[in-house]
Parts: sequence; C-alpha cells; structure tokens
Amino acid sequence: MAVRWFYLSFYALWFLGLMSIILTIYWMQLWHGGFAWDGTVLMFNYHPVLMVVGLVVLYSAASLLYRLPQSWTGPKLPWKIGHAALHLLAFVLTVLGLVAVFQLHRRSKITNLYSLHSWLGIVTVFLFACQWFLGFVVFLLPWASVWLRSLLKPIHLFFGVIILSLSIASVISGINEKLFFSLNNATQPYSSLPGEAIFANSLGMLVVVFGLLVLYILLVSSWKRPEPGILTEGQVWGPGLPFQVGVGPGLERGHPGKAWALPGRPLNDVVGNQVA
Amino acid sequence: MAVRWFYLSFYALWFLGLMSIILTIYWMQLWHGGFAWDGTVLMFNYHPVLMVVGLVVLYSAASLLYRLPQSWTGPKLPWKIGHAALHLLAFVLTVLGLVAVFQLHRRSKITNLYSLHSWLGIVTVFLFACQWFLGFVVFLLPWASVWLRSLLKPIHLFFGVIILSLSIASVISGINEKLFFSLNNATQPYSSLPGEAIFANSLGMLVVVFGLLVLYILLVSSWKRPEPGILTEGQVWGPGLPFQVGVGPGLERGHPGKAWALPGRPLNDVVGNQVA
Repeated sequence: MAVRWFYLSFYALWFLGLMSIILTIYWMQLWHGGFAWDGTVLMFNYHPVLMVVGLVVLYSAASLLYRLPQSWTGPKLPWKIGHAALHLLAFVLTVLGLVAVFQLHRRSKITNLYSLHSWLGIVTVFLFACQWFLGFVVFLLPWASVWLRSLLKPIHLFFGVIILSLSIASVISGINEKLFFSLNNATQPYSSLPGEAIFANSLGMLVVVFGLLVLYILLVSSWKRPEPGILTEGQVWGPGLPFQVGVGPGLERGHPGKAWALPGRPLNDVVGNQVA
Repeated sequence: MAVRWFYLSFYALWFLGLMSIILTIYWMQLWHGGFAWDGTVLMFNYHPVLMVVGLVVLYSAASLLYRLPQSWTGPKLPWKIGHAALHLLAFVLTVLGLVAVFQLHRRSKITNLYSLHSWLGIVTVFLFACQWFLGFVVFLLPWASVWLRSLLKPIHLFFGVIILSLSIASVISGINEKLFFSLNNATQPYSSLPGEAIFANSLGMLVVVFGLLVLYILLVSSWKRPEPGILTEGQVWGPGLPFQVGVGPGLERGHPGKAWALPGRPLNDVVGNQVA
C-alpha cells in the first residue's frame, strides 16, 4: 500500500511536470508564433518554456532524486553526482531562459529587470547559483568537515525548498504579466477571459499543483534515504542535525526483503541524524 | 546566545511585518489617492493593505504563536484559542480585502476573477477557510480522536506553510499586476522604473523576505513548544507523528532556570512526538 502510494505520487509528478512543459510549449506555439533563437519576439518564447523546464520541473526532479528507493542502497556518491549534475543542467537551462529575454530586450531596446517578476526571478536564479556552488564545495568535494556539513545541511535543504517556492512565485507572476501584455490591445482583453487567458491561467495553476506535490514529498513524506551508518566514498558521518522528520504514508512500516526497509527501526530515526 | 538569536529574529519579524504594512498603506496613499469604503477605486486601495495585513502578517503572527517561549509552559488551551482567534481575525481581514476588490468590480462592471493573480488568490483564501475550519473542529473542539489528530497534524502544519507561500505568490503577482495597470498609460511607463515602480517592487521583495523568515522559523528552527507529557484542558496524547524536527540556533541547549529548557533532553525529541 505504502509502496503503491509512493509510486503513484511519482507518476503523478511525472505527469504534472510533463503536462506543464507541454502546455507551455503549446501556449507559445499556438498563440505566440513558435520559437526561433534570433533575438526577436520568437526568441522570447523560449523564456517561459526554459524556465518551466529548468527552474521548476528539472529542479524538482534533481531535488527529489534521493527520494527514489533505488538511491537508498549502495554508495551515495553516484547519487550525489546525479543530484549535482541534474541541478547543473537545470541551472544551464535557466540561464538560457534568461538569455532569451535579455536578447529580446537588447534588440528591442527594452529596459532589463524592471518588473517585480524580473526582480524576484533574478534573485531566485542568484540564490540557485549560490546554492549549487555551496552544495558542490561542501557536500560533493571531500574536504568539508563534518561540523561544516552538519551546519549547512539544514540550510541547504531549507534553501532548496525556498528556491522552488520562489521559482513558482516567479512563474505565476510571469504568466500573469505575459497575459497582461499579450491581451492588452486585443479585441478580447484579459478581463473577458478569452481562450488564451483560460489556457495560461490553468497552466499557472498546474505549475502550482506540481510545486505543492514536490513540496509535500520534500517536507512531509517520510520517503527519505536511510543512512545505515556505512561509510561510502567521500562520506563522513557524525552527530547530525536533522532538518526535518517527515510523516505520511511512508515506506518504513516494514517490507521484508525490500532494501529500503530497516526492520524494527523507523526510517525517521535514521534519516533524522544523517549528515550530508 | 541562543535566546538572544531567538528574540533578534522575532524583533526582525516585527520590523519587517510592520514595514510591509506601512509601506503598502503609503503606496496606496501617496500614489493612488488614499482610502474610502465607497465602491470607487479608493475602495480598491484597501485590497492590497488588507491582504498584506491579514493574509501575510497576521497569518504569520498566528502561525508563529507556539514559537513564543511564553506559550511553552502551563496549559496549551489558551494558546490554541489565541492561535485560532488570530487566524480568524486574519481571515476576516482577508475577506474584507476581497470585498474591497469585488465591490469595485461590481460598480465598474469589471469581470471578477479573470487574472491568474485572482485565481491563485481565491484558491489561497479557500484553502485558508478549509484549514481554519478543519483546525477548529479537529484540534480545538475536544471530540476528535488521538488517531485523527495524529493523522491531521502534519497535514495541518504542511498546509499552514503552503497557504503562506501561496499568499506571498499572490501578493507578488498582485503588486506586479497593479503596477502594469497604474503605470500603463502614464508618461513614465513601468519599464522606465519611475518612483512608484521602485517603491512597490521593493515592497514586494520586503514581503518575500518577511515570508522567508517566517518559513525559516516554522520549518528549520528548533523553537517549538515542548510537550512534557502533562495533560491539560482538552489535550490528548499518544504516539505522535512528527511533522518536522528542526535545527538552528535553538533554545534547547540548556538555560538553567528558564521554563522552556528541559535539562538533558533535546527539545527536538520532545516536540517531535507531540500530537495536537
């Protein structure tokens, strides 16, 4: 039952994430003429797509990597590298998304970074960059002390959650802003709720639902990598400082033979004291 | 040191919350002609103020009530009533904030609920209503079983965090939207970053910083009400399901003589197993 619930949530996430991407592409294709990397308004159309793909969906996938039961056994290092690599890919796509809008602004002589959407977005990307760099130095490179990892782990997890929340707030304000632009001088204004408005509003709400499900799995569920105390490559251990101990339909209630079930010991107790 | 850090954070929160309210009032007063409860555009000006006061600042204050060390000793019921009453006040102000905008729309024949900002906002208020009602029935009225409280406590806490996050996303998209309206036909457009734009963008970022600090205290800090196992009015106890166990500059490292220090027992261990 618990395992089924776990996989159901992951399939729901896949579906919601994929739908968010497809609907963003569809929106830009159908109502805004499609894509071209040429500095025109068609280049701008890459902006929402790359942001939804990079800053929301791939970012979430990278964040949730340790929740996969497959990651719960064996050495942690390959999963750490996967976590960092996926986040790097998400970051590169995000930066390309910024390039798309900056290039249009340059060509059309529009001021950069004037709206609140852009202020929040650029702060989010800056936090993402700091988070990746600090994560790489402290958790992936082998030189950081246990003390430093203990200190930064909850901060790393907290900012992981915060950056996703800010990304979603940026996407919402961005979609809202785009609709006020594109449905401003039309015969059908935004307030008459034409097809594009309903479509893009629904897309925004879909992104919110996706984000809530990711946050639920990150914050509340107990689907976390157990750390049975085995030192693997580059891993250090010590008296950890727990970020959170979750609850929900967990996998810890004992599934004999499953690698992620530690018999007789609630997963929370284990996960709550890991470092790095 | 830990106690000083705790009070510093609370004073910072007071300052940021108060500044958010004052700056919102100032924005509406200086650039939009002030306030009047008369169905005109001056009535709309109550909308951002009531939303920032109700849905962000008072909501946060109500959520953080159990983090006050004063609430950590003695019976819990008065604090529960305070928690519910403050949230009810926040909800009433939020509904008045909705009335302000609906009244303007009615008078000016503007469609209700067409923008993504309004969709997200109304969903947030709806979730807030459900959260309050369920919280009242399950946690304040004495009839709910331990099992039900255990089941709903982490959901209640999760949605508490989520509603605040959605509120802030709503405020950000709302400020952005308002600026596109009010700086649309002006001689100085939004993109030229006139005084109002810089002022209101900064207000938006201030609300974000306020929200991040609240979320930090809710999610990461270990400043939580310890539950030493004493049954007080209407309280029931049982094998609790922890929502999260925090970390940070906590109060639990032992302050002899202070009521909130439980000698020799980390606060996390205690708080992690409470119900309701």
